Amino acid sequence: MSNTAGQVIRCRAAVAWEAGKPLVIEEVEVAPPQANEVRIKILFTSLCHTDVYFWEAKGQNPLFPRIYGHEAGGIVESVGEGVTDLKAGDHVLPVFTGECKDCAHCKSEESNMCDLLRINTDRGVMLSDGKSRFSIKGKPIYHFVGTSTFSEYTVVHVGCLAKINPSAPLDKVCLLSCGISTGLGATLNVAKPKKGSTVAVFGLGAVGLAAAEGARLSGASRIIGVDLHSGRFEEAKKFGVTEFLNPKEHEKPVQEVIAELTNGGVDRSIECTGSTEAMISAFECVHDGWGVAVLVGVPHKEAVFKTHPVNFLNERTLKGTFFGNYKTRTDIPSVVEKYMNKELELEKFITHKVPFSEINKAFEYMLKGEGLRCIIHMEE
Amino acid sequence: MSNTAGQVIRCRAAVAWEAGKPLVIEEVEVAPPQANEVRIKILFTSLCHTDVYFWEAKGQNPLFPRIYGHEAGGIVESVGEGVTDLKAGDHVLPVFTGECKDCAHCKSEESNMCDLLRINTDRGVMLSDGKSRFSIKGKPIYHFVGTSTFSEYTVVHVGCLAKINPSAPLDKVCLLSCGISTGLGATLNVAKPKKGSTVAVFGLGAVGLAAAEGARLSGASRIIGVDLHSGRFEEAKKFGVTEFLNPKEHEKPVQEVIAELTNGGVDRSIECTGSTEAMISAFECVHDGWGVAVLVGVPHKEAVFKTHPVNFLNERTLKGTFFGNYKTRTDIPSVVEKYMNKELELEKFITHKVPFSEINKAFEYMLKGEGLRCIIHMEE
Repeated sequence: MSNTAGQVIRCRAAVAWEAGKPLVIEEVEVAPPQANEVRIKILFTSLCHTDVYFWEAKGQNPLFPRIYGHEAGGIVESVGEGVTDLKAGDHVLPVFTGECKDCAHCKSEESNMCDLLRINTDRGVMLSDGKSRFSIKGKPIYHFVGTSTFSEYTVVHVGCLAKINPSAPLDKVCLLSCGISTGLGATLNVAKPKKGSTVAVFGLGAVGLAAAEGARLSGASRIIGVDLHSGRFEEAKKFGVTEFLNPKEHEKPVQEVIAELTNGGVDRSIECTGSTEAMISAFECVHDGWGVAVLVGVPHKEAVFKTHPVNFLNERTLKGTFFGNYKTRTDIPSVVEKYMNKELELEKFITHKVPFSEINKAFEYMLKGEGLRCIIHMEE
Repeated sequence: MSNTAGQVIRCRAAVAWEAGKPLVIEEVEVAPPQANEVRIKILFTSLCHTDVYFWEAKGQNPLFPRIYGHEAGGIVESVGEGVTDLKAGDHVLPVFTGECKDCAHCKSEESNMCDLLRINTDRGVMLSDGKSRFSIKGKPIYHFVGTSTFSEYTVVHVGCLAKINPSAPLDKVCLLSCGISTGLGATLNVAKPKKGSTVAVFGLGAVGLAAAEGARLSGASRIIGVDLHSGRFEEAKKFGVTEFLNPKEHEKPVQEVIAELTNGGVDRSIECTGSTEAMISAFECVHDGWGVAVLVGVPHKEAVFKTHPVNFLNERTLKGTFFGNYKTRTDIPSVVEKYMNKELELEKFITHKVPFSEINKAFEYMLKGEGLRCIIHMEE
């Protein structure tokens, strides 16, 4: 046991006091973990679009002050009552969605949408007692998706922690706790392209490039990247993308362009933008008879997916995925092993790094659409 | 070789001279089969909605005079040049869609949508020479979907014939050449419910009941039948349907009623009506995390399938199927064996029989919505 176990820890956290305003590094109190909770020391965290989306709080219930952050790697400091899977010193990735191992979803081989620990962006407190473990001079600060990794220490439900190989470099594998696993799993677990097949990827941000990386690992013969920013193609080549289409540069709908390029359509497509138009294109660009399209990107609340039902009747399949269909505790450790085996490449996703004190720079890079992932070094 | 081989055969056929007008039994000339064609003697045929739909010719290109019919069983009379798989005396089921064994679809394990022999409702002639094999006093009569089984003899492309066990009773297994295989395969090949799972079937006509039969064979624990005609439930029980819902009797959308009955949704659903509303309900009634919905029913040309993309993102799958994903030559013989092994029950689909001379009665039964299948006995 560490000598801080059972004690309140005082440490630095980046607090969002208001929607869209720069985070402020504050000294916070982090309470000890309660039953089925784990307190972890965060070493590296990165910034994902979802953090920015909820920090901007446009069209959602604003919940402030709040500590954001959900892509991270850390080390267990202490565990609460009933936690037997983890102990102080274990290396873990906190994940925004969990695995209770007890509900119908966890018991199903097909689903990772745990009834108990499924993502909840509206809840800013811990499940067990409805309270926060963070405070500043006694005033509670809200959690975010059960992770709040923009803090040197955080408290997470044991079901939301993947115990990983302790020799894995946390400054790289921290990326696997959200975006990269989401895109990679969409391809490997859901689209499942066969060796030699053709794959289209819509949206060449980090998630889309992770989907392309999955297609590369699967041995796809052609990977067609689709994005509204032609500047992204050069970077995308590193992820196996062989051809690029910018829908703005074509008069025909991009699904028709793809069908012409591929003798009727691609074998698999993966949609990583959240735009309804891209979803429709991603579905309609797959080959009849066997094509499978997978939706990853999260649409706005009023979005409507529309297509002619004959597109389904001609033996096309449309599926969606959440966190790449990976189960947090069961599957994520094996994704880390893919990296350790040098099968999966993570370095190429990391385009920036900043010390924790400069976390707002990470927000600036993302808002400018600059780079892929910025790693925030907590100890710097 | 039969002594009619190479000769024109004169026989009876039921000719549709005009859209929607009773068929007329005429003496027709049936030319010998050309290369890759087979002439067969039809013993039993049944009437399917598709015959009626194209006979009514509402909104399609009218093609008359024409010989309809595509659910049938017969015996090979003679074969054309190059036909090696079949010989005179073989028992066959003609199918409206074929398997050339050479195109990308035939080579794919997943597709049965043969590029060469895929259903074509607009073509009224043979593929090889663009001519009809039927005539009356030299005047050509159009074919229908390559089968035209409302004739004592017909000519079919070899790729559209399933060679079946000669001991199978043709007056029963003739049903497997269209509707019953379509519904059965939608469940067994596409929805693939596990033993003990819950299944909803939309539309309790012959195709929907065949889908229910597939769910029964799969060991589904609950089969929920959905139909606008409550009178159909009693009959549906024979096909394994355990519960019935008439959407007209509920204020809530039927997908919500199903979700309440099944703790969040069924494991699988199969849509056999072609109504867009039913398609949406069939998709939205499956459980998140693992639910799969399969579309079978053919919609009208302007139909639009609409749903919120989050229904996909919550790990639901939507697929469509054509002829139950069965390949005509490779797979249909094994469906006949399922009947021979007493696994699949066909007798319960047969609610009427008529002699060929009274074929118009079969149309009357169908137009009244009376019964499931009417077997037309060609030799009576």
